[in-house]
Amino acid sequence: MKRTVFYISDRTGITAEALGQALLTQFDELEFEETTIPFIDTKEKVIKAVEQINAASKRDGVRPIIFDTIVRPELRQLLKQADGMTLDFFHTFIGPLEDELDTKSSFSVGKVHALQDVHAYDHRIDAVNFSLNNDDGATTRNYKDADLIIIGVSRCGKTPTSLYLAMQFGLKVANYPFVAEDMDNLKLPHELAKHKGKLFGLTIFPERLHDIRTERRANSQYASLPQCKMEVRAVEALFRREKIAFLNATTRSIEEISTKILVKCNLGRHATGI
Amino acid sequence: MKRTVFYISDRTGITAEALGQALLTQFDELEFEETTIPFIDTKEKVIKAVEQINAASKRDGVRPIIFDTIVRPELRQLLKQADGMTLDFFHTFIGPLEDELDTKSSFSVGKVHALQDVHAYDHRIDAVNFSLNNDDGATTRNYKDADLIIIGVSRCGKTPTSLYLAMQFGLKVANYPFVAEDMDNLKLPHELAKHKGKLFGLTIFPERLHDIRTERRANSQYASLPQCKMEVRAVEALFRREKIAFLNATTRSIEEISTKILVKCNLGRHATGI
Repeated sequence: MKRTVFYISDRTGITAEALGQALLTQFDELEFEETTIPFIDTKEKVIKAVEQINAASKRDGVRPIIFDTIVRPELRQLLKQADGMTLDFFHTFIGPLEDELDTKSSFSVGKVHALQDVHAYDHRIDAVNFSLNNDDGATTRNYKDADLIIIGVSRCGKTPTSLYLAMQFGLKVANYPFVAEDMDNLKLPHELAKHKGKLFGLTIFPERLHDIRTERRANSQYASLPQCKMEVRAVEALFRREKIAFLNATTRSIEEISTKILVKCNLGRHATGI
Repeated sequence: MKRTVFYISDRTGITAEALGQALLTQFDELEFEETTIPFIDTKEKVIKAVEQINAASKRDGVRPIIFDTIVRPELRQLLKQADGMTLDFFHTFIGPLEDELDTKSSFSVGKVHALQDVHAYDHRIDAVNFSLNNDDGATTRNYKDADLIIIGVSRCGKTPTSLYLAMQFGLKVANYPFVAEDMDNLKLPHELAKHKGKLFGLTIFPERLHDIRTERRANSQYASLPQCKMEVRAVEALFRREKIAFLNATTRSIEEISTKILVKCNLGRHATGI
């Protein structure tokens, strides 16, 4: 039986989803039907959400599960009248925190994911633009300004990782591909060697690389398994020879790769001002 | 007095940070010194984290606050021995959920932000690549495959919003800029008019646009306040005339803009497989 799940937030709903999904993954034999209702910041909107929840409850014959990050107590109270099981993230932790900090919370809506610090925000947008402009070895002349340069074979995950690090952590991340023509007698190019402290390698299982490249250019030399094997072997040997830290991206999400890189490179998690 | 805060996770720490930061923004007159310790998945690592927490407690003369999303109970128990106030996300909510779902949780580490569904993952990477390849009006011939096309003046926030929507929600988002030369007698170009149902407008306050463009090209015509005012006025008039939904990005974070667009366009929040 599928259980209906609601994520209800007075802002974007991103935090409610992250928390709720973290909990639900612990029940992986069950099936969930998930709905996010963001920007629920007035009584009228809460009442409409309650109606939606009650309709689902009636339809399912079992009450839905509600993950809620609504800040204002009077709205939360109203939501509790829904025919569902409410897991109330703010209410649960804010009381103990008030005691510990000996301070009343401000109960103000929209502190998370609202634009708070315009400088931090600009810093983040700058990082995204830097990563875009220095994607895929487009240019090497900005490497002096980079926080990190990700290197690896084509299609091993460098671009999404660079963008995620920029977007989430405000880091300026360039990336540089090693291509087929580099593989004979593979060396670290001079422009990379100059910034060796900023280099981080990504690698991937050749079989997975073969699948990804086949999606892109089926039956090409580029996508062939022997070519993928040869490139991965050559690049991993380079990483080892040059003592460049690296990570196998194959079974990891972008979030996981990114945070592992932060740890390995000892890079701070900059506030992004959101 | 600054309070020290630790985010401790057996995986990336992203969920612990989201929860903790959402709560801490409610105490905005206080100052916090935040440290994330991810990938704490063995006893040895917990013991090292406990030492770090205890050292901070000693240094501060007041116990740190610990947001923890460690799944395995025996590791959580060990962490509780630290001299700090622990807000234990899993312990707090997993019990009530087990009762409600009448199912034991799997206590397995790494279900969140670990790669679970390779197809959903590929879908997400495809979306990021689509958004990169169709950034800034680079080409208009893939618009038939787009989920969304964001339009607006240069530097109003189209690119980061497109990439965020792709990364977070697996949506294929193109974007198209209106430039100075378009402004006389501004019309919706044919390639956009063909896909009117997919269009969403972004706008921005001219003063803020002037600041952003000045950073990029100081004292240019492009960055001048009259030019910014004229472009914003022309583009907003176009949005209204053509009845294209739009949003002012000025005071909003990328997350907020993105989720508002999802709501306004009635686009689903695709699972990203992470």
